[in-house]
Amino acid sequence: MSSAISPLAPTDVPAMPAIAGVTLATAAAGIRYKGRTDVLLAIMDKGTTVAGVFTQSKCASAPVEWCRARLGGGKSSKAGKSSKTGLARALVVNSGNANAFTGKTGRQATSLTASIAAKAVGCQTGQVFLASTGVIGEPLDATKFDGVLGELAAKTAPDAWLEAARAIMTTDTFPKVATATVRLGKAKVTINGMAKGAGMIAPDMATMLSFIFTDAPISAPALQSLLKAGVEDSFNAVTIDGDTSTSDTLLAFATGAAAAHGAPKISRASDPRLKAFAKAFHAVLANLAEQVARDGEGARKLVEITVEGAVSKTSARRIAMSIANSPLVKTAIAGEDANWGRVVMAVGKAGEPANRDKLSISFNGIRVAKSGARDPSYDEAEVSAAMKQPKIAIKVALGLGKGRDRVLTCDLTKEYVAINGDYRS
Amino acid sequence: MSSAISPLAPTDVPAMPAIAGVTLATAAAGIRYKGRTDVLLAIMDKGTTVAGVFTQSKCASAPVEWCRARLGGGKSSKAGKSSKTGLARALVVNSGNANAFTGKTGRQATSLTASIAAKAVGCQTGQVFLASTGVIGEPLDATKFDGVLGELAAKTAPDAWLEAARAIMTTDTFPKVATATVRLGKAKVTINGMAKGAGMIAPDMATMLSFIFTDAPISAPALQSLLKAGVEDSFNAVTIDGDTSTSDTLLAFATGAAAAHGAPKISRASDPRLKAFAKAFHAVLANLAEQVARDGEGARKLVEITVEGAVSKTSARRIAMSIANSPLVKTAIAGEDANWGRVVMAVGKAGEPANRDKLSISFNGIRVAKSGARDPSYDEAEVSAAMKQPKIAIKVALGLGKGRDRVLTCDLTKEYVAINGDYRS
Repeated sequence: MSSAISPLAPTDVPAMPAIAGVTLATAAAGIRYKGRTDVLLAIMDKGTTVAGVFTQSKCASAPVEWCRARLGGGKSSKAGKSSKTGLARALVVNSGNANAFTGKTGRQATSLTASIAAKAVGCQTGQVFLASTGVIGEPLDATKFDGVLGELAAKTAPDAWLEAARAIMTTDTFPKVATATVRLGKAKVTINGMAKGAGMIAPDMATMLSFIFTDAPISAPALQSLLKAGVEDSFNAVTIDGDTSTSDTLLAFATGAAAAHGAPKISRASDPRLKAFAKAFHAVLANLAEQVARDGEGARKLVEITVEGAVSKTSARRIAMSIANSPLVKTAIAGEDANWGRVVMAVGKAGEPANRDKLSISFNGIRVAKSGARDPSYDEAEVSAAMKQPKIAIKVALGLGKGRDRVLTCDLTKEYVAINGDYRS
Repeated sequence: MSSAISPLAPTDVPAMPAIAGVTLATAAAGIRYKGRTDVLLAIMDKGTTVAGVFTQSKCASAPVEWCRARLGGGKSSKAGKSSKTGLARALVVNSGNANAFTGKTGRQATSLTASIAAKAVGCQTGQVFLASTGVIGEPLDATKFDGVLGELAAKTAPDAWLEAARAIMTTDTFPKVATATVRLGKAKVTINGMAKGAGMIAPDMATMLSFIFTDAPISAPALQSLLKAGVEDSFNAVTIDGDTSTSDTLLAFATGAAAAHGAPKISRASDPRLKAFAKAFHAVLANLAEQVARDGEGARKLVEITVEGAVSKTSARRIAMSIANSPLVKTAIAGEDANWGRVVMAVGKAGEPANRDKLSISFNGIRVAKSGARDPSYDEAEVSAAMKQPKIAIKVALGLGKGRDRVLTCDLTKEYVAINGDYRS
């Protein structure tokens, strides 16, 4: 497995400010990896609200079921009564073992982890949120957290953001953080986020985990609405290989500490005072989602696919995803080939309204096909040069309506096959 | 591009008998390839019925639109009035250029090809069927057929089946033929078929073409019903990479010549006398479809995915296809890794009813997971040995109902990326 940093990694890593009401610490619990951290504990002040969105998999992991139950959206669990108040005091994330497809043992491991964390932090188990990423089908030995979480609780600090982003990595080649500062009423509030993406723990599936923190005083329902709206054009618009993890988890926490400096308490997402905040919140999500695409397994090209002129945004999304998930399109980009025929193929197979004879396609601004045939003016040499860029923008104009959407993906390289075709042991 | 024969190629190539009423010939028209044949002309006796199924792409090629119009299921074309009688006299197939996404020029090329063929054979243009496979977006110069089809018409022979299967290849590594002989009433009738599959013309998409011929006297509607039923568990149950060609075409021709030897004329597919024939017809389709999977680009393993215990056959098909199209499952098989976690992931993302805690999974008969967790009795060494076989059977038992289905695919290797990531020029 290659550990070289992706050539698409951002060159600037932002300085991450503190968020009042949040402290973090990491440790090496030896769950799977040697010589690196693999557990993150974040402690939030009392009154912190929480919201979450999760994998759509029908075979979700035990931690995903745990979080859903805590948010009131999932099955209630016998162990650890759900508070269902939308409040959170602790987040425990481990890498190395996804605690997925582990049956009853998996549920027991989540309960035990939450109990240990609740004791360490001094809160209800129902206010502990959990996420795990790594190997699937292996029992997670939660007793490993026993001493560790107590030690971590004693040393959490407000500035450990980059360390936190590192501890949740699997085979991500760089830690992913983003931050924004924005006015809410007369107060300055901060939004910090971290993510891990489509790096692979040999041999298991990529998992997207992301955690967003803010000191803004936002009610749990308003935070949930913000998150649901924000994920649509960020994390939900990124695909690496069309495969969906059993563990995908995106949680947002709002401590409300900025209320002390005059930030208004927001109870509804539609509150007009939230406008600038919502924009910044969505920008943080979009930034992290793009970093996930930039760290796709074996990725050498960031690919942005824009579909316009579709009958609706939903239709544009489906067509864009059909292009983004096509192995033939992705291998062509790996080969630096402006193969618009494969784009036509992917439009055609999406099953959405499309008229071949109205279709136009461009690569990095150079139109290669128009009105259902090769653009007679296109210059192969110019296109070939454009395809050598690290970022490839494919634009498809359908000429049918006003539906428009944009998704991000990466190319499909031999390295992807190597990373994912390695033996487990 | 590697031209080595797939390690999964069948070792026995059947001797292909003649079909009364069908003659074939091939030529090298130099459409794209050098030093090989690239045009097939098949001539059928008067009274031959025809049926067809085609790509579901919304951006189908000009030849697909031509055939659909001839069968009465598509837009009527100005050039070459549709007979819509379900009768065929000639089939022209070329490899090297798909005549897809070629706009008006493409429609003109189909009309011109049909006119040339009609003149050469002495039939109506509406009784000429066309298929093209190869590069997309390049105008097809149909004038190249002008002399060639006349010469071919003068030399068609009843035994040129293997040559025919060779002429329609793109980067297939072996020609694909199958045959069956079966009783219809008191007469012996023959079914011959050929196919080309998921070989790639650099850099364009794989296309499945298949042509079936029989001397049985079967009406066009009955033949269409047989074909539609037969394709469901054969060609429609094969996937290489989930990408759908703009040119996929499956045509069946029935000359009716066996009526002279006492075969009853069949007008309805439900005719009980057709039972043995239908079975043999479906077996020929299944045989050819399996050969297509065995010649998937870069394939080193044939993969058979069986899903049982689903809520319905449709649900089982969707889950099986989700597994078959998962890059993570396919790369694991390339790596000879019995990675059942990825199978769980693919079941979960299919969106069909599934209960994680009832799921069992086996590889080549060895159960690796049961009741939603690792099978405690499974022996890693035994499974590792099984994964070295050229054929891998993955069986998933959902434990929900009686729905069952089976699909075929192949592994995803670095060779797939190499074949499809090469430069066009």
